[in-house]
This record gives sequence, structure tokens and C-alpha cells, in this order.
Amino acid sequence: MNTADRRPPYFLGIDLGGTNIKSGVVDDLGRPLSSVSVETNADRGPDAGIATLAEAGNLAVHASGLTWDEITAVGLGSPGMMDIPAGMLTDPPNLPGWNDFPIRQRLAEALRKPTVLQNDANAAAFGEHWVGAGRNTRSLVMFTLGTGIGCGIVSEGRIVEGRHSHGAECGHIVIQMENGRRCSCGAYGHLEAYASATALVKRAEEALAYERDSLLHDALARGTLSSRSVSEAAARGDALARRLMRETARYLAVGAVCLMHTIDPDVVLFGGGMIAAGPSLLNDIRNDVKSLAFPVPAERTRIEYAELGGDAGFIGAAACARAAHGPGSEKS
Amino acid sequence: MNTADRRPPYFLGIDLGGTNIKSGVVDDLGRPLSSVSVETNADRGPDAGIATLAEAGNLAVHASGLTWDEITAVGLGSPGMMDIPAGMLTDPPNLPGWNDFPIRQRLAEALRKPTVLQNDANAAAFGEHWVGAGRNTRSLVMFTLGTGIGCGIVSEGRIVEGRHSHGAECGHIVIQMENGRRCSCGAYGHLEAYASATALVKRAEEALAYERDSLLHDALARGTLSSRSVSEAAARGDALARRLMRETARYLAVGAVCLMHTIDPDVVLFGGGMIAAGPSLLNDIRNDVKSLAFPVPAERTRIEYAELGGDAGFIGAAACARAAHGPGSEKS
Repeated sequence: MNTADRRPPYFLGIDLGGTNIKSGVVDDLGRPLSSVSVETNADRGPDAGIATLAEAGNLAVHASGLTWDEITAVGLGSPGMMDIPAGMLTDPPNLPGWNDFPIRQRLAEALRKPTVLQNDANAAAFGEHWVGAGRNTRSLVMFTLGTGIGCGIVSEGRIVEGRHSHGAECGHIVIQMENGRRCSCGAYGHLEAYASATALVKRAEEALAYERDSLLHDALARGTLSSRSVSEAAARGDALARRLMRETARYLAVGAVCLMHTIDPDVVLFGGGMIAAGPSLLNDIRNDVKSLAFPVPAERTRIEYAELGGDAGFIGAAACARAAHGPGSEKS
Repeated sequence: MNTADRRPPYFLGIDLGGTNIKSGVVDDLGRPLSSVSVETNADRGPDAGIATLAEAGNLAVHASGLTWDEITAVGLGSPGMMDIPAGMLTDPPNLPGWNDFPIRQRLAEALRKPTVLQNDANAAAFGEHWVGAGRNTRSLVMFTLGTGIGCGIVSEGRIVEGRHSHGAECGHIVIQMENGRRCSCGAYGHLEAYASATALVKRAEEALAYERDSLLHDALARGTLSSRSVSEAAARGDALARRLMRETARYLAVGAVCLMHTIDPDVVLFGGGMIAAGPSLLNDIRNDVKSLAFPVPAERTRIEYAELGGDAGFIGAAACARAAHGPGSEKS
């Protein structure tokens, strides 16, 4: 972007993942001025983690061509269980040893900037609401499909954080109460246990034990069976892979319908690595939603893919910083 | 209430049901000054219905000792599908012939008062939030257990109406995706198909075909089998009835947990006729919620019975009128 087109104030967004930290500076119109990625090295513990987060922030500010003086506030999106108002990570499964860690305060001290903490899936939804596939809506639900299923809800322009920071943990709604699959969280019958990338691979492995004729046997033998290999085999006409993708779409439609009958948003978005499956998955989800939802939301609720890709996390984290400390915010 | 204790302004709440219309005047502190009930006679159609609603309003105002001049605004809670912002009933199953009916405008003309329309279960939840079991909370979910399962959600003090007036239709979330029971709405596996009073009776009838030894056979033979007869037999130690109530509690806990992992409210309330089952049902729900929810909401979210009973509907409708037209409202 031409530097003259930038619209201040500027916000730094940081998306903390178990493997990588993505970070970027975002202007007041939601446009990223930079995008950097560094390894998390979560096993080094939270003190080293703060230094790595600060490094990611420095790289992003430097790459944007701005100085730290021009950054109004910082937003941090993080996975796992947390206490959002307190700025504490409580029990993040992908960040061993980071439990009961006052990450917001520690990062604010390291960067000397007002800092907000948000759940990463909530932040991604807020980013899509700001400048992605959910712009110009009042409410949206976003499912992020990856190893697990993240979810974020924006209602009347606000993130539904929940009273105990457990809002929008919709990978863990029960869609199969009896004889449900075991979820990564240990409970049974959750949406995530059926429709995450991990669950798709598990269902493929199970099916391959009974189905001789499938392109997926090669990937299984090579140890490369993934959600992507399933969707690619489906695109090449493999019957088993097609069935697995079709079932995935139905599970996701069930999840979408549960949210449509709860939040009733303008739009339901799907993001994350699995949307590489392309239009056929999206169309299957749309068709199943139409048959499962009440007539009015079935007809009117938009079902779309997210638009911001891997940048949704840091853009959304920057949006959270802007909502708390930007123009028109309560604290501005 | 001593008339000197009344706190103006005053609001008229009307709760339109398929069988009866309940109505009452409510003061600014949420205290009902009157409570009347008249028959709906829905089969006479919507024009006669407006006259009956007006009659219910007149009776309630008269019984309150106030005059119409002292009534600031009117709130109407109604069942069925509607367009809340437009004030239209679209397809109310219990009010045949009332479809596509501009009920808000027609009632406002008949009563010559500012009038708001709200879904009845949303209104009941808003009433409990104002002066019932959800007072002093920021967010609540309320399930009303009757022929069906109504639901209302209050988040940050506002009703979650949804973009298409289908917010909080949580009797129709899917809890059993495969081999689910058929719901009254025609779809399969919905919460309502398992845990409503109607569903409990149906499950009892099915079980009695295989279970010889149960007090419920008498009620079945007399044609009086009801959710109440099941809960009463359970209280008397009947093993089958106990099992049916235990299952009902688990289904309701699954519904509660889905909402706790979506809205994450301060409190989940259960209201409606089925709570006559008393503390044992509530305790069973609480125990199952503890085992099914994530640790933090499991520990901290209150699970309670509603407190306003059959008055919740009109008190909540009055609360909606107050939110739109009372002190501090956008339109005041």
C-alpha cells in the first residue's frame, strides 16, 4: 500500500499459535501494512514466549515502515482456555506450561502499549466482521476448521465472549448425544469430533479398513493421509473420499443450523485450512443447511467461506485493540 | 400492593397463547399490579383476536386501578414464527389463520398506545432477567418446558432476537444427528423431540409397551398420562418413571451445555409446567451439566428454575415495552 493511503491510527495484531506466531500492523480501515511469522517454540515456556511475542511485534512494526510511537494499541489472539477480562491464559492445551499466566499484562509491559487479550477464534471472527466476509453485517458466526473447530460469534457488533470466557466454544456443542464420537476434549458427540480435519482423517482411516477401492489407500500407506488428501481425492472422483466430504458437509451444516437457531446471524462463515476443499464443500453445506434449518433462516442466512485466510487472526486481534483503544472506543 | 408504593411509569404486558391470553399492568420496578386471563378463541381469526387482546388489556388496566392515560406503552408476547421488527406474525402454528398478520400495528391502533411485539419465550426470558431468577445478571438462557420447548436468550441486557427473528429457537437445536426422534416441526433429533412434556409422555408410552410393572399403566389406561403423572410417579418411587425423568434431565443438560458453550451465560433457567417436578429434576440437570460442560462453566454457571411462573410472559412483555418506550429507552 502506498504510504500516503494509510489511515491512522495504527494497531498491532498478534496471533499466537501453538506452532507459529503471526503478526502485523493494521491501519484504521483494517488494511494490513505488514505480515510476519515466527516460530512459537512454546516448549521454552511463557517467559521466553513473551520475548518471542515481542520479537514478532518488533518485526511487524519494522516491516510496516512505522515506528512504535505510531502504534496506538496491541491485540493478542491466543488459543486455549483463558480469562479474557483478566488477561490470563488459564489452561491452553497447545502451550504447555503457559497455564495461569498473566499474558496480557506481561506483553503490555514488554511492548509498553495498551494491550488486549482475546480468544483466537473470536478474534478471527471479529476480523472477518470488520473487513472480511462478514463486513457490513450486524451478526455472524464463524467456524475455523483445523485440527479442532474454533468458533467466534459477533452479535450486534460485539464479540460474544461469554460470562466465563467460554462463549462460542461451538466446536464443543453436542450433535450426537447417544453413541457419539469421542472429542479431543474427552467428551462425546461434539461437533469437533465429527467435522474437524483431525476427525475427517480418522473417519477416512476407519472407512479404509472396509473399503478396498479408494485412492486414499496410497496416502494411508505413505503416511500422508490428511484432510487435504481426502478433499483432493474427492475432487478426482474417488467415491469413498466423496462420501467422506459429503458427510463432513452435513456435520458442518448441523453445526451451522444449531447456531442459526440460537444466534440467527446474518451470515455463517467457514474458515481454516479445510476450506481449501473449495466450492463443492461449501455448496454441500449450503444444500444441507437449506434442508435442515427453519424456512426463513434457510432462505436468508448467507453461508460463505471466510476471506482473510491466515491473516484473520492478527487482523482480528488488531480489531480488538481498536475496539478497546481506538477512535470511538470506551477508553479513547 | 399499596397504591402509594407503585412506581410509575406503568406498562401493559399481554401474553398471547393458543388457549389463553394473560395480561397485566406492571410498574417501573417490574411489579405486577394486576393479572387477568381470558380465552383466546384463536379459531375465530385475527380480527376477533384483536378485540379479545384489547378486552384482556382493558380488564388488566381496570383491575390495576389505573386508567389508560397512565399506561405508557404495551408489550405483546406471541408464539410462533414472526417478523419482530415488522410487528408481523408470519406463521404461528397455534393460531391458525393469523399468518401474515400485522398484529403490532393492529393492536396499537385498537389500544392507541405505542406497542411492541416480541416472541413469547424471549419475553419470558426478559421478564426473568428483569425481576425473576435472572435479575442482576448480564446474560441468561431460559428454556420454557411445555408442549414444546421455548427458549429466550438475554446477552448484555438485550434479547437475542436474531437477524430473521429466529434467535433462541433452541428447542430446535440438533442433539441427536443420527437416528434422532422426530420433532413437532418435522425435523429430526431436536432437543424438543426429547425433552418437552409431549416428548416425555411419548417416551413413557413407548416404554410402557415393554415394562409391565409401573404405576404409569393406570394413567395410560385412564387416558391421563401426562408429564405431571410421570414426575409424580417418579416421586413415589416408580422405577420406570424415575428413569424417564432421569433421561429428561440428561437431555435438558445436553441442551444447557450446548448453550453454555455458545452463549456462556451467567445462569441457565428452566421454566414452564414441567418444573412442577420439583428439586429432583433440577438437581439431576445440575449433576449432568457438571459432567458434560467444560470445567469453568460447569463450576460457575448457575442452573435454576425460573421464578415468575405463568406471569413471566406478561411481565416480560411489559419489560419489552419499557425497554422500547420507558425511561432511558431510545425512544423516550
